[in-house]
Amino acid sequence: MVEKITLSHGSGGRLMHELVDNLILKELGNSVLREKKDSAIFKIGNRKTAFTTDSYVVNPLFFPGGDIGSMAVYGTVNDLSVCGARPLFISLSLIIEEGFDRALLEKIIKSVKLASKKAGVYVVTGDTKVVEKGSCDKIFINTSGIGEIYYDGLSVENIRQGDRIIISGPIGDHAISVLSKREGIEFKTKVKTDSAPLNDLIYRALKASKKVRFMRDPTRGGLATTLNEIARGAPFGISIDEGELPIRDGVREASELLGFDPLYLACEGRVVVIVAKEDEARALNAMRRHKDGKDAKAIGEISADYRGRVYLNTSAGGKRIVEMLSGEQLPRIC
Amino acid sequence: MVEKITLSHGSGGRLMHELVDNLILKELGNSVLREKKDSAIFKIGNRKTAFTTDSYVVNPLFFPGGDIGSMAVYGTVNDLSVCGARPLFISLSLIIEEGFDRALLEKIIKSVKLASKKAGVYVVTGDTKVVEKGSCDKIFINTSGIGEIYYDGLSVENIRQGDRIIISGPIGDHAISVLSKREGIEFKTKVKTDSAPLNDLIYRALKASKKVRFMRDPTRGGLATTLNEIARGAPFGISIDEGELPIRDGVREASELLGFDPLYLACEGRVVVIVAKEDEARALNAMRRHKDGKDAKAIGEISADYRGRVYLNTSAGGKRIVEMLSGEQLPRIC
Repeated sequence: MVEKITLSHGSGGRLMHELVDNLILKELGNSVLREKKDSAIFKIGNRKTAFTTDSYVVNPLFFPGGDIGSMAVYGTVNDLSVCGARPLFISLSLIIEEGFDRALLEKIIKSVKLASKKAGVYVVTGDTKVVEKGSCDKIFINTSGIGEIYYDGLSVENIRQGDRIIISGPIGDHAISVLSKREGIEFKTKVKTDSAPLNDLIYRALKASKKVRFMRDPTRGGLATTLNEIARGAPFGISIDEGELPIRDGVREASELLGFDPLYLACEGRVVVIVAKEDEARALNAMRRHKDGKDAKAIGEISADYRGRVYLNTSAGGKRIVEMLSGEQLPRIC
Repeated sequence: MVEKITLSHGSGGRLMHELVDNLILKELGNSVLREKKDSAIFKIGNRKTAFTTDSYVVNPLFFPGGDIGSMAVYGTVNDLSVCGARPLFISLSLIIEEGFDRALLEKIIKSVKLASKKAGVYVVTGDTKVVEKGSCDKIFINTSGIGEIYYDGLSVENIRQGDRIIISGPIGDHAISVLSKREGIEFKTKVKTDSAPLNDLIYRALKASKKVRFMRDPTRGGLATTLNEIARGAPFGISIDEGELPIRDGVREASELLGFDPLYLACEGRVVVIVAKEDEARALNAMRRHKDGKDAKAIGEISADYRGRVYLNTSAGGKRIVEMLSGEQLPRIC
């Protein structure tokens, strides 16, 4: 049987990890790539440098609160930021379908401009390809980014039992925003994407506490997948409290209607911060003083139980294991 | 009238320059981006660093002598190399069409591995997206790369009247290789792509001469377009000799049959070197000692005539202006 690539291989979940581990890491693995961090980290001269890449294929191109242009900037800025890097420079590579409106391209480029300004990064290099009508869907954008590490040592290996888990704001806004626009569904409560640059918010958290252990932004596969990536193979479990999860009414409503679990819905402007218990208040307060962190909340902790797993303390008083995303919940969400 | 993006906007030629200048540079322009070099150059700590990006949409994925995987590595390695940088790290971002054969993906990743090894670079970060069947054509690959500048000051501004123009080998092999495979055309003489990493060849040339002024690899739009990019707005003209142009029989034959001008055919493993006249032999000899430069040839010089233009001294004894590529000669050649 010929094995085919499926949408689930791009979901951010279990099948994508399998593909990355068994094919890409197997063939191309080196000490930096094997870390599987949001950014590669290496030295240039005496400076620790972070380097990351992401291709954006979101459909539709424009959705409530954002668009592919700003998302392509923020996504890469965030992948640098969660590694303790100050984002400096980004590249912009466009693959455009023949027949695409130039006016829309202009709108996207203007959004890239505004987003770069907001995030304080410079687009310094780029590429433009055009393919025949039907050979790509409107436009795909790749951004890669370079940053300078200012907070060293964020690593899953620093995580200790008792550490607290903070999320910077409500989960799932991005996925529901894109989905509502794509499917033309109107919900009672409008949901806007959370897509935003996290560099400043993260800087404040890292300035407030020297005991931040690790950070990751829960994009594809949502919070559940990100927490599973952290717990996988680790000598600890992750315990989260259902009652503490910040979820907007609109996201809850849409999820119930459509049968989604908000834990698996992508965010584009949220960060999971794992911090020593004694610094929880310090980090939380610093984050809450920032407009993109004002709803930051502690949602759980690193536990001695369920090593390598994530479990949810349900509002009903039970426990349930939270697996990594195993299918494709929402293709082309970013 | 709604203005549409056409294949010509991705050709590397006149329309692409118009799009880049009037939209992308206009909106996103900063001192680094405006240089329009093959790589952005900036300092990290005290090290001059080069950073570049390219998306590869070549069709077919496999062609005589190469494939999209090795091309994606070499293309980015070369964009760093022509700026006087030693390529160090690259990113690898895949956009895959749902239903793509996993075995083919494996073949491509193995080619990336081999090519990285050959070029001496490490793939340190990556991304995988999958889009629905029909939303992209098989697979697109973006690579971005980081290198360290070891030869400073390569710039069009250093070019002086009398400087010599060297090409490292025959032109157009890549375009004809891809085209023959794509169209299923068999020519009397088989042509293999010239796709290859140029870092070592360029290192030797730069070691041999401290008077190399500028380099660029003639990819989309071919030698004619690259020379026009150099001459555009410059206080000099570029004069090349038709009789000196290295063109393989197979490329000549295919071009005649299909109505192409080899001057506009893409290369993926050639470099144009502009060097002071007194160092011509030094650079040429160094290049010829390398397997990818053994057919290197001086093909013309920087002249006082025809400022801002490129002209060809024809074999018949006339002169003809060589324009930048103005349409789309061959879409998806890289």
